[in-house]
Amino acid sequence: MHRLIDNELKGLKSELVQMAKLVQMSIDCATTALQERDLEKTRETQQIEAKINQSHILVDAECVRILALQQPLATDLRFIVSAIKINTDLERMGDQAVNISHNAERYIGGAELKPLVDLPLMFNEVRWMVSEALEAFIGQSVSMAREVLSRDDRVDALKNKIFSDVIGHLKDEPSQMEQGLSLILIARNLERIGDHSTNIAEDVIFTATGQDIRHAARSKGLI
Amino acid sequence: MHRLIDNELKGLKSELVQMAKLVQMSIDCATTALQERDLEKTRETQQIEAKINQSHILVDAECVRILALQQPLATDLRFIVSAIKINTDLERMGDQAVNISHNAERYIGGAELKPLVDLPLMFNEVRWMVSEALEAFIGQSVSMAREVLSRDDRVDALKNKIFSDVIGHLKDEPSQMEQGLSLILIARNLERIGDHSTNIAEDVIFTATGQDIRHAARSKGLI
Repeated sequence: MHRLIDNELKGLKSELVQMAKLVQMSIDCATTALQERDLEKTRETQQIEAKINQSHILVDAECVRILALQQPLATDLRFIVSAIKINTDLERMGDQAVNISHNAERYIGGAELKPLVDLPLMFNEVRWMVSEALEAFIGQSVSMAREVLSRDDRVDALKNKIFSDVIGHLKDEPSQMEQGLSLILIARNLERIGDHSTNIAEDVIFTATGQDIRHAARSKGLI
Repeated sequence: MHRLIDNELKGLKSELVQMAKLVQMSIDCATTALQERDLEKTRETQQIEAKINQSHILVDAECVRILALQQPLATDLRFIVSAIKINTDLERMGDQAVNISHNAERYIGGAELKPLVDLPLMFNEVRWMVSEALEAFIGQSVSMAREVLSRDDRVDALKNKIFSDVIGHLKDEPSQMEQGLSLILIARNLERIGDHSTNIAEDVIFTATGQDIRHAARSKGLI
Protein backbone atom coordinates (compact mmCIF):
# COMPACT_ATOMS: atom_id res chain seq x y z
CA MET A 1 0.00 0.00 0.00
CA HIS A 2 1.32 3.39 -0.91
CA ARG A 3 1.03 5.85 1.93
CA LEU A 4 1.20 9.64 1.77
CA ILE A 5 3.69 9.63 4.62
CA ASP A 6 6.15 7.58 2.55
CA ASN A 7 6.52 10.50 0.15
CA GLU A 8 6.91 12.92 3.03
CA LEU A 9 9.63 10.82 4.64
CA LYS A 10 11.38 10.33 1.31
CA GLY A 11 11.47 14.11 0.85
CA LEU A 12 12.81 14.61 4.36
CA LYS A 13 15.50 11.98 3.86
CA SER A 14 16.52 13.52 0.56
CA GLU A 15 16.86 16.97 2.20
CA LEU A 16 19.04 15.48 4.97
CA VAL A 17 21.22 13.67 2.42
CA GLN A 18 21.76 16.93 0.50
CA MET A 19 22.65 18.63 3.76
CA ALA A 20 25.08 15.84 4.69
CA LYS A 21 26.79 16.23 1.32
CA LEU A 22 27.23 19.95 1.98
CA VAL A 23 28.72 19.04 5.35
CA GLN A 24 31.19 16.65 3.69
CA MET A 25 32.13 19.39 1.20
CA SER A 26 32.67 21.90 3.99
CA ILE A 27 34.93 19.53 5.93
CA ASP A 28 36.93 18.75 2.78
CA CYS A 29 37.24 22.46 2.03
CA ALA A 30 38.41 23.33 5.51
CA THR A 31 40.99 20.54 5.65
CA THR A 32 42.24 21.35 2.12
CA ALA A 33 42.61 24.98 3.24
CA LEU A 34 44.99 23.83 5.94
CA GLN A 35 46.92 21.27 3.92
CA GLU A 36 47.38 23.46 0.86
CA ARG A 37 47.60 26.78 2.74
CA ASP A 38 44.73 28.03 0.61
CA LEU A 39 42.85 31.03 2.05
CA GLU A 40 40.24 30.89 -0.71
CA LYS A 41 39.15 27.50 0.63
CA THR A 42 38.56 28.94 4.08
CA ARG A 43 36.11 31.44 2.58
CA GLU A 44 34.45 28.65 0.61
CA THR A 45 33.89 26.69 3.84
CA GLN A 46 32.08 29.68 5.29
CA GLN A 47 29.90 30.02 2.18
CA ILE A 48 28.89 26.37 2.38
CA GLU A 49 27.97 26.81 6.04
CA ALA A 50 25.39 29.44 5.08
CA LYS A 51 23.66 26.82 2.91
CA ILE A 52 23.85 24.22 5.69
CA ASN A 53 22.16 26.70 8.03
CA GLN A 54 19.29 27.17 5.56
CA SER A 55 18.78 23.40 5.41
CA HIS A 56 18.91 23.24 9.21
CA ILE A 57 15.91 25.52 9.54
CA LEU A 58 14.05 23.87 6.66
CA VAL A 59 14.46 20.32 8.01
CA ASP A 60 13.22 21.23 11.48
CA ALA A 61 10.17 22.96 10.00
CA GLU A 62 9.49 19.90 7.82
CA CYS A 63 9.71 17.58 10.83
CA VAL A 64 7.20 19.66 12.81
CA ARG A 65 4.90 19.84 9.78
CA ILE A 66 4.97 16.07 9.16
CA LEU A 67 4.43 15.32 12.86
CA ALA A 68 1.41 17.64 12.91
CA LEU A 69 -0.20 16.48 9.66
CA GLN A 70 0.64 12.78 9.55
CA GLN A 71 0.84 11.87 13.23
CA PRO A 72 3.26 9.03 12.45
CA LEU A 73 3.82 5.97 14.66
CA ALA A 74 6.49 3.32 15.30
CA THR A 75 9.39 3.36 12.80
CA ASP A 76 8.06 6.45 11.01
CA LEU A 77 7.88 8.37 14.27
CA ARG A 78 11.35 7.21 15.28
CA PHE A 79 12.66 8.27 11.87
CA ILE A 80 11.36 11.81 12.38
CA VAL A 81 12.66 12.07 15.95
CA SER A 82 16.04 10.89 14.61
CA ALA A 83 15.84 13.38 11.76
CA ILE A 84 15.46 16.21 14.30
CA LYS A 85 18.62 15.03 16.04
CA ILE A 86 20.62 14.25 12.91
CA ASN A 87 19.74 17.71 11.62
CA THR A 88 21.30 19.24 14.75
CA ASP A 89 24.40 17.04 14.37
CA LEU A 90 24.87 18.01 10.73
CA GLU A 91 24.55 21.69 11.53
CA ARG A 92 27.16 21.40 14.29
CA MET A 93 29.48 19.52 11.96
CA GLY A 94 29.20 22.49 9.60
CA ASP A 95 30.06 24.78 12.55
CA GLN A 96 33.12 22.65 13.30
CA ALA A 97 34.24 22.85 9.65
CA VAL A 98 34.03 26.64 9.98
CA ASN A 99 36.02 26.45 13.22
CA ILE A 100 38.66 24.42 11.36
CA SER A 101 38.72 27.07 8.64
CA HIS A 102 39.26 29.84 11.22
CA ASN A 103 42.04 27.86 12.89
CA ALA A 104 43.53 27.17 9.44
CA GLU A 105 43.51 30.91 8.70
CA ARG A 106 45.45 31.56 11.86
CA TYR A 107 47.85 28.72 11.05
CA ILE A 108 48.43 29.91 7.48
CA GLY A 109 49.17 33.40 8.80
CA GLY A 110 52.40 32.15 10.40
CA ALA A 111 55.36 29.95 9.59
CA GLU A 112 54.67 26.30 8.83
CA LEU A 113 55.03 23.76 11.61
CA LYS A 114 56.49 20.84 9.71
CA PRO A 115 55.12 18.22 9.37
CA LEU A 116 51.38 18.62 10.16
CA VAL A 117 51.91 15.82 12.69
CA ASP A 118 49.19 13.17 12.29
CA LEU A 119 46.48 15.57 11.20
CA PRO A 120 46.24 14.19 7.61
CA LEU A 121 45.72 10.71 9.09
CA MET A 122 43.04 12.08 11.40
CA PHE A 123 41.34 13.84 8.46
CA ASN A 124 41.09 10.51 6.67
CA GLU A 125 39.68 8.69 9.68
CA VAL A 126 37.08 11.38 10.31
CA ARG A 127 36.16 11.66 6.63
CA TRP A 128 35.59 7.90 6.63
CA MET A 129 33.33 8.14 9.71
CA VAL A 130 31.25 10.96 8.23
CA SER A 131 30.85 9.15 4.93
CA GLU A 132 29.99 5.80 6.56
CA ALA A 133 27.48 7.45 8.90
CA LEU A 134 25.82 9.07 5.89
CA GLU A 135 25.69 5.74 4.02
CA ALA A 136 24.30 4.04 7.13
CA PHE A 137 21.59 6.70 7.26
CA ILE A 138 20.77 6.41 3.53
CA GLY A 139 20.53 2.61 3.69
CA GLN A 140 19.19 2.57 7.29
CA SER A 141 21.95 0.02 7.87
CA VAL A 142 22.52 -1.07 11.47
CA SER A 143 25.73 -2.93 10.57
CA MET A 144 27.30 0.15 8.93
CA ALA A 145 26.21 2.25 11.89
CA ARG A 146 27.99 -0.16 14.23
CA GLU A 147 31.11 0.13 12.06
CA VAL A 148 31.07 3.90 12.64
CA LEU A 149 30.83 3.44 16.40
CA SER A 150 33.74 1.02 16.42
CA ARG A 151 36.08 3.57 14.80
CA ASP A 152 35.61 6.35 17.33
CA ASP A 153 38.46 5.13 19.52
CA ARG A 154 40.96 5.47 16.67
CA VAL A 155 40.03 9.11 16.24
CA ASP A 156 40.43 9.75 19.97
CA ALA A 157 43.84 8.05 19.97
CA LEU A 158 45.00 10.17 17.02
CA LYS A 159 43.84 13.33 18.77
CA ASN A 160 45.81 12.42 21.89
CA LYS A 161 48.92 11.70 19.81
CA ILE A 162 48.60 15.03 17.98
CA PHE A 163 48.20 16.86 21.31
CA SER A 164 51.37 15.34 22.77
CA ASP A 165 53.41 15.76 19.55
CA VAL A 166 52.49 19.43 19.27
CA ILE A 167 53.14 20.08 22.97
CA GLY A 168 56.54 18.41 22.64
CA HIS A 169 57.36 20.56 19.62
CA LEU A 170 56.24 23.78 21.29
CA LYS A 171 58.43 23.22 24.32
CA ASP A 172 61.39 23.50 21.93
CA GLU A 173 59.88 26.21 19.74
CA PRO A 174 57.67 28.43 21.93
CA SER A 175 57.72 31.13 19.25
CA GLN A 176 55.38 28.91 17.20
CA MET A 177 52.74 28.91 19.94
CA GLU A 178 49.86 30.29 17.81
CA GLN A 179 50.47 27.79 15.02
CA GLY A 180 50.78 24.87 17.42
CA LEU A 181 47.61 25.89 19.21
CA SER A 182 45.78 26.08 15.87
CA LEU A 183 46.73 22.48 15.12
CA ILE A 184 45.60 21.34 18.57
CA LEU A 185 42.26 23.08 18.16
CA ILE A 186 41.81 21.56 14.68
CA ALA A 187 42.42 18.10 16.16
CA ARG A 188 39.73 18.91 18.75
CA ASN A 189 37.33 20.12 16.00
CA LEU A 190 37.90 16.89 14.07
CA GLU A 191 37.27 14.81 17.18
CA ARG A 192 33.94 16.60 17.61
CA ILE A 193 33.02 15.87 13.98
CA GLY A 194 33.77 12.20 14.69
CA ASP A 195 31.51 12.39 17.77
CA HIS A 196 28.67 13.82 15.70
CA SER A 197 29.12 10.92 13.23
CA THR A 198 28.69 8.46 16.10
CA ASN A 199 25.55 10.34 17.21
CA ILE A 200 24.11 9.88 13.71
CA ALA A 201 25.04 6.19 13.77
CA GLU A 202 23.25 5.80 17.12
CA ASP A 203 20.15 7.47 15.69
CA VAL A 204 20.17 5.10 12.70
CA ILE A 205 20.23 2.15 15.11
CA PHE A 206 17.42 3.70 17.16
CA THR A 207 15.24 4.24 14.08
CA ALA A 208 15.76 0.73 12.78
CA THR A 209 15.52 -1.21 16.04
CA GLY A 210 13.82 1.04 18.59
CA GLN A 211 16.84 0.48 20.83
CA ASP A 212 18.57 3.40 22.48
CA ILE A 213 22.17 2.20 22.70
CA ARG A 214 23.68 5.44 23.97
CA HIS A 215 25.62 5.70 27.22
CA ALA A 216 25.00 2.44 29.11
CA ALA A 217 25.46 -0.03 26.28
CA ARG A 218 28.54 1.71 24.93
CA SER A 219 30.19 2.20 28.28
CA LYS A 220 29.66 -1.48 29.03
CA GLY A 221 31.45 -2.36 25.80
CA LEU A 222 28.30 -4.01 24.44
CA ILE A 223 28.85 -2.59 20.98
CA MET B 1 -10.57 22.25 30.43
CA HIS B 2 -8.10 19.89 31.90
CA ARG B 3 -6.31 17.79 29.28
CA LEU B 4 -4.38 14.56 29.76
CA ILE B 5 -1.52 15.97 27.73
CA ASP B 6 -1.06 18.79 30.25
CA ASN B 7 -0.01 16.24 32.86
CA GLU B 8 2.30 14.55 30.39
CA LEU B 9 3.98 17.82 29.44
CA LYS B 10 4.26 18.84 33.09
CA GLY B 11 6.06 15.56 33.84
CA LEU B 12 8.39 16.05 30.89
CA LYS B 13 9.19 19.59 31.94
CA SER B 14 9.87 18.51 35.48
CA GLU B 15 12.28 15.80 34.27
CA LEU B 16 14.14 18.36 32.12
CA VAL B 17 14.34 20.80 35.03
CA GLN B 18 15.85 18.09 37.26
CA MET B 19 18.32 17.28 34.52
CA ALA B 20 19.23 20.95 34.08
CA LYS B 21 19.89 21.21 37.82
CA LEU B 22 22.26 18.23 37.59
CA VAL B 23 24.00 20.00 34.70
CA GLN B 24 24.42 23.14 36.82
CA MET B 25 25.82 21.04 39.65
CA SER B 26 28.27 19.32 37.32
CA ILE B 27 29.54 22.63 35.92
CA ASP B 28 29.93 24.02 39.44
CA CYS B 29 31.78 20.88 40.52
CA ALA B 30 34.16 20.97 37.57
CA THR B 31 34.97 24.65 37.96
CA THR B 32 35.41 24.29 41.73
CA ALA B 33 37.79 21.39 41.04
CA LEU B 34 39.98 23.75 39.04
CA GLN B 35 39.75 26.76 41.32
CA GLU B 36 40.34 24.84 44.55
CA ARG B 37 42.66 22.20 43.05
CA ASP B 38 40.29 19.56 44.38
CA LEU B 39 40.60 16.15 42.69
CA GLU B 40 37.59 14.80 44.62
CA LYS B 41 35.41 17.34 42.77
CA THR B 42 36.59 16.04 39.41
CA ARG B 43 35.35 12.57 40.33
CA GLU B 44 32.07 14.04 41.55
CA THR B 45 31.57 15.72 38.16
CA GLN B 46 31.91 12.34 36.49
CA GLN B 47 29.41 10.75 38.88
CA ILE B 48 26.86 13.47 38.15
CA GLU B 49 27.33 12.90 34.42
CA ALA B 50 26.19 9.29 34.80
CA LYS B 51 22.89 10.58 36.23
CA ILE B 52 22.56 13.13 33.41
CA ASN B 53 23.01 10.33 30.89
CA GLN B 54 20.18 8.35 32.50
CA SER B 55 17.88 11.37 32.21
CA HIS B 56 18.99 11.86 28.61
CA ILE B 57 17.68 8.43 27.61
CA LEU B 58 14.54 8.76 29.72
CA VAL B 59 13.54 12.15 28.28
CA ASP B 60 13.92 10.99 24.68
CA ALA B 61 11.83 7.91 25.38
CA GLU B 62 9.17 10.07 27.04
CA CYS B 63 9.06 12.43 24.05
CA VAL B 64 8.54 9.54 21.62
CA ARG B 65 5.87 8.05 23.88
CA ILE B 66 3.94 11.32 24.22
CA LEU B 67 4.15 11.98 20.46
CA ALA B 68 2.80 8.49 19.74
CA LEU B 69 0.01 8.47 22.32
CA GLN B 70 -1.12 12.11 22.39
CA GLN B 71 -0.37 13.27 18.85
CA PRO B 72 0.03 16.85 20.06
CA LEU B 73 -0.38 19.94 17.90
CA ALA B 74 0.72 23.59 17.82
CA THR B 75 2.43 24.81 21.03
CA ASP B 76 2.33 21.32 22.60
CA LEU B 77 4.04 19.81 19.57
CA ARG B 78 6.64 22.58 19.49
CA PHE B 79 7.27 22.04 23.20
CA ILE B 80 8.06 18.37 22.60
CA VAL B 81 10.28 19.03 19.59
CA SER B 82 12.10 21.62 21.71
CA ALA B 83 12.35 19.13 24.58
CA ILE B 84 14.14 16.67 22.25
CA LYS B 85 16.66 19.37 21.36
CA ILE B 86 17.05 20.78 24.87
CA ASN B 87 17.66 17.24 26.12
CA THR B 88 20.57 16.92 23.67
CA ASP B 89 21.96 20.30 24.72
CA LEU B 90 21.80 19.42 28.41
CA GLU B 91 23.55 16.11 27.83
CA ARG B 92 26.34 17.84 25.87
CA MET B 93 26.69 20.44 28.63
CA GLY B 94 27.25 17.53 31.02
CA ASP B 95 29.91 16.18 28.62
CA GLN B 96 31.59 19.57 28.59
CA ALA B 97 31.61 19.66 32.40
CA VAL B 98 33.38 16.29 32.32
CA ASN B 99 35.83 17.66 29.75
CA ILE B 100 36.51 20.57 32.12
CA SER B 101 37.09 18.09 34.95
CA HIS B 102 39.61 16.13 32.82
CA ASN B 103 41.42 19.32 31.86
CA ALA B 104 41.35 20.38 35.52
CA GLU B 105 42.94 17.06 36.50
CA ARG B 106 45.76 17.68 34.06
CA TYR B 107 46.14 21.24 35.32
CA ILE B 108 46.18 20.23 38.98
CA GLY B 109 48.86 17.65 38.16
CA GLY B 110 51.38 20.43 37.45
CA ALA B 111 52.54 23.74 38.89
CA GLU B 112 49.99 26.52 39.17
CA LEU B 113 49.84 29.08 36.41
CA LYS B 114 49.10 32.17 38.41
CA PRO B 115 46.58 33.78 38.19
CA LEU B 116 43.92 31.71 36.41
CA VAL B 117 43.72 34.58 33.92
CA ASP B 118 40.06 35.55 33.34
CA LEU B 119 38.66 32.04 33.83
CA PRO B 120 36.80 32.87 37.08
CA LEU B 121 35.10 35.77 35.27
CA MET B 122 34.18 33.45 32.41
CA PHE B 123 32.79 30.86 34.88
CA ASN B 124 30.49 33.52 36.29
CA GLU B 125 29.28 34.64 32.87
CA VAL B 126 28.59 31.09 31.74
CA ARG B 127 26.94 30.13 35.03
CA TRP B 128 24.64 33.13 34.59
CA MET B 129 23.75 32.05 31.04
CA VAL B 130 22.97 28.48 32.09
CA SER B 131 20.85 29.61 35.00
CA GLU B 132 18.96 32.23 32.95
CA ALA B 133 18.33 29.74 30.12
CA LEU B 134 16.90 27.32 32.68
CA GLU B 135 14.66 30.02 34.17
CA ALA B 136 13.54 31.05 30.66
CA PHE B 137 12.63 27.42 30.00
CA ILE B 138 10.77 27.00 33.31
CA GLY B 139 8.77 30.21 32.82
CA GLN B 140 8.65 29.86 29.00
CA SER B 141 9.85 33.46 29.01
CA VAL B 142 10.80 34.94 25.64
CA SER B 143 12.30 38.05 27.26
CA MET B 144 14.62 36.02 29.50
CA ALA B 145 15.58 33.88 26.52
CA ARG B 146 16.53 37.02 24.60
CA GLU B 147 18.67 38.12 27.57
CA VAL B 148 20.62 34.86 27.29
CA LEU B 149 21.25 35.42 23.59
CA SER B 150 22.49 38.95 24.20
CA ARG B 151 25.22 37.74 26.59
CA ASP B 152 26.88 35.28 24.24
CA ASP B 153 29.27 37.90 22.84
CA ARG B 154 30.69 38.59 26.30
CA VAL B 155 31.59 34.93 26.72
CA ASP B 156 33.27 34.86 23.31
CA ALA B 157 35.26 37.99 24.14
CA LEU B 158 36.43 36.48 27.44
CA LYS B 159 37.51 33.29 25.67
CA ASN B 160 39.57 35.29 23.16
CA LYS B 161 41.20 37.26 25.97
CA ILE B 162 42.07 34.07 27.87
CA PHE B 163 43.55 32.53 24.72
CA SER B 164 45.84 35.48 24.10
CA ASP B 165 46.82 35.89 27.77
CA VAL B 166 47.79 32.22 28.06
CA ILE B 167 49.67 32.23 24.74
CA GLY B 168 51.59 35.32 25.88
CA HIS B 169 52.47 33.63 29.16
CA LEU B 170 53.55 30.39 27.50
CA LYS B 171 55.94 32.17 25.16
CA ASP B 172 57.88 33.20 28.30
CA GLU B 173 57.32 29.93 30.17
CA PRO B 174 57.17 27.09 27.63
CA SER B 175 57.76 24.55 30.40
CA GLN B 176 54.18 25.20 31.54
CA MET B 177 52.75 24.13 28.18
CA GLU B 178 50.45 21.37 29.52
CA GLN B 179 48.97 23.64 32.16
CA GLY B 180 48.48 26.50 29.74
CA LEU B 181 46.84 24.21 27.22
CA SER B 182 44.49 22.92 29.92
CA LEU B 183 43.31 26.45 30.64
CA ILE B 184 42.80 27.16 26.94
CA LEU B 185 40.75 24.00 26.54
CA ILE B 186 38.68 24.83 29.62
CA ALA B 187 37.92 28.26 28.11
CA ARG B 188 36.80 26.45 24.95
CA ASN B 189 34.63 24.03 27.01
CA LEU B 190 32.99 26.97 28.77
CA GLU B 191 32.35 28.71 25.46
CA ARG B 192 30.55 25.55 24.26
CA ILE B 193 28.43 25.48 27.43
CA GLY B 194 27.47 29.09 26.67
CA ASP B 195 26.55 28.06 23.11
CA HIS B 196 24.30 25.29 24.42
CA SER B 197 22.59 27.84 26.68
CA THR B 198 21.84 29.98 23.64
CA ASN B 199 20.45 26.92 21.85
CA ILE B 200 18.07 26.34 24.76
CA ALA B 201 17.06 30.02 24.69
CA GLU B 202 16.32 29.75 20.95
CA ASP B 203 14.16 26.67 21.58
CA VAL B 204 12.21 28.52 24.27
CA ILE B 205 11.49 31.30 21.77
CA PHE B 206 10.48 28.73 19.13
CA THR B 207 8.08 26.99 21.51
CA ALA B 208 6.44 30.20 22.65
CA THR B 209 6.19 32.02 19.32
CA GLY B 210 6.60 29.41 16.56
CA GLN B 211 9.45 31.54 15.22
CA ASP B 212 12.76 29.96 14.34
CA ILE B 213 15.22 32.76 15.04
CA ARG B 214 18.40 30.79 14.49
CA HIS B 215 21.02 31.78 11.93
CA ALA B 216 19.41 34.43 9.71
CA ALA B 217 17.80 36.61 12.33
CA ARG B 218 20.77 36.53 14.65
CA SER B 219 23.35 37.18 11.96
CA LYS B 220 21.32 40.17 10.81
CA GLY B 221 21.41 41.56 14.34
CA LEU B 222 17.63 41.31 14.62
CA ILE B 223 17.77 40.13 18.20
